[in-house]
Amino acid sequence: MKVSQPVRLTMVGGGSWATALVKILSENNVSIKWWLRKTSDAEHIKQFGHNPSYLSDVQINTRKVKVCTKIRDAFRDSQYIVLAVPAAFVSDALTGIRPEHFDGKCVISAIKGMIPGANQLVTDWVSEQYNVPTQRMSVIAGPCHAEEVALEKQSYLTIASPDPVCAENVSDLLRCRFVQTTPVDDIYGIEYSAVMKNIIALACGITRGLGYGDNFQAVLVSNAMQEIRRFVDAIHAKHRDLSGSAYLGDLLVTAYSPFSRNRTFGTLIGRGYTIQSAQAEMNMIAEGYYAVKSIYEVNQRFGVRMPIVDAVYTILYEKAAPGAAMNTLKELLK
Amino acid sequence: MKVSQPVRLTMVGGGSWATALVKILSENNVSIKWWLRKTSDAEHIKQFGHNPSYLSDVQINTRKVKVCTKIRDAFRDSQYIVLAVPAAFVSDALTGIRPEHFDGKCVISAIKGMIPGANQLVTDWVSEQYNVPTQRMSVIAGPCHAEEVALEKQSYLTIASPDPVCAENVSDLLRCRFVQTTPVDDIYGIEYSAVMKNIIALACGITRGLGYGDNFQAVLVSNAMQEIRRFVDAIHAKHRDLSGSAYLGDLLVTAYSPFSRNRTFGTLIGRGYTIQSAQAEMNMIAEGYYAVKSIYEVNQRFGVRMPIVDAVYTILYEKAAPGAAMNTLKELLK
Repeated sequence: MKVSQPVRLTMVGGGSWATALVKILSENNVSIKWWLRKTSDAEHIKQFGHNPSYLSDVQINTRKVKVCTKIRDAFRDSQYIVLAVPAAFVSDALTGIRPEHFDGKCVISAIKGMIPGANQLVTDWVSEQYNVPTQRMSVIAGPCHAEEVALEKQSYLTIASPDPVCAENVSDLLRCRFVQTTPVDDIYGIEYSAVMKNIIALACGITRGLGYGDNFQAVLVSNAMQEIRRFVDAIHAKHRDLSGSAYLGDLLVTAYSPFSRNRTFGTLIGRGYTIQSAQAEMNMIAEGYYAVKSIYEVNQRFGVRMPIVDAVYTILYEKAAPGAAMNTLKELLK
Repeated sequence: MKVSQPVRLTMVGGGSWATALVKILSENNVSIKWWLRKTSDAEHIKQFGHNPSYLSDVQINTRKVKVCTKIRDAFRDSQYIVLAVPAAFVSDALTGIRPEHFDGKCVISAIKGMIPGANQLVTDWVSEQYNVPTQRMSVIAGPCHAEEVALEKQSYLTIASPDPVCAENVSDLLRCRFVQTTPVDDIYGIEYSAVMKNIIALACGITRGLGYGDNFQAVLVSNAMQEIRRFVDAIHAKHRDLSGSAYLGDLLVTAYSPFSRNRTFGTLIGRGYTIQSAQAEMNMIAEGYYAVKSIYEVNQRFGVRMPIVDAVYTILYEKAAPGAAMNTLKELLK
């Protein structure tokens, strides 16, 4: 980056992905206002330079990063707003923010989920609620565990925006010593497949919990790629290569990771936990749980054949027995 | 299967995949002559109904399965010949067999490799050496660990043949309680991608051995799918969906399995073992080691951009340092 003035950016969210992004952005000439809901976490970061709740090993560069617990203060003077809270909490996090607070700013969504109830992609929802032109929206995608960013393991991100200049600028912000970035224009395809992959990871977990093995999972993931393609083609037809790392890679890193929340949640369900006890056990939200409802409902308009989404939906929302639902599903795969 | 007379079939090979296939075929009305090179293994199976060297837990149904150590005896009267030895040993295993011994028989290749030196697919080589019409050739593919077949975990196989009737018949032979089968016609695409996946698994192992993480592997596998597509399209252009389980699924089950020989071999190389010491450590052959040489040499004629194959080739055959080769490769991925 050749600019001498630092780029001014707001990070909204205090979880592990937000923390990883703060670490990446701090490698570049970026001045960050970091909004966290939890005052105690914010204080801890200010005092000790570590997020006590997530990726606690990551050293926060407090010369570049100012923490802040008032969302309006966090927005003031920023050129970029990065949204990095679970989709279900975006609305809450932005309480007190009005459309004019977004004036002139670019929005970067680091969220892989849909707004529950509204059944909208985060970018569509923000754009509509706050009158942000879609040309100033972008999403960060890519196969990227926050934990590996913390360890500075070589990673890749894909930045999608309808505006190539916006995609390019955001790519520049996030490119660093251990992260390569690629700007692309397929914001819909990338957001929807990011949402879908959480559902697929959940399905992988369910089958794992039921005792299915690696052979089955490989077939499930292959069939999932075909299901994702049918769905995104129906929603937003466009030439896209789904074997790109933002689509297939993102699915793989989630579906094959024992650290994936969605996979873990699914495994508990497959083993016979109720939804309530699985959630209590994990003490966190599996985005796939909400995502499958949104995608299922959106698909009522499109009627795409989605046997995997249907199976997960009937298990989580219609009390189908996981074993029986997967018995039905396995006959539909090949 | 509605036939009352059992189908007569010869299994060539005594390894774990051959043993798994014998188990699957024994579920159906098939009479099997099982050729094994090792007399002691053959005797053990005859006496105790278990292969002492591979998948020893599998109970062999000795009413349906006759073991045999003379290859010509094994061929006599069979309608199907299944080849299930490593590609490097096919020629040896068939010593004494002449073209007329294949007369009227269908050949099923369960081998995922190329004949070293000849740089030919197994089906092409057999077809040429023994005058077997390509219409009577088929291959068994699919994401299928032999170990999971032994445990009767739900699995899927894809059977490819240029002749739809042949593909259908072989599919019928292999379909059983825990295995679903799908007949297809893309024998070239499926064989070449099966060969490629061993190279990719080896590459995954090398990067793992060097300390790269899951984020990188997801990107490597995504890029590999694009590399496989470029290559098979150049060799044999055809409309094919590489997210099918015989292509993508097969790659996944190998690349993500800690049991994959190719991945393990790669991991040792990545950690700094010499090829000799890695081979000695494993006491077995990693097919990807030979495959990468064949594919690299075949590609001299086609000139397809194959950065992953090139990287593995330079490490294994041109003494490139794994770290340096992967440093170069990582810049080419996205």
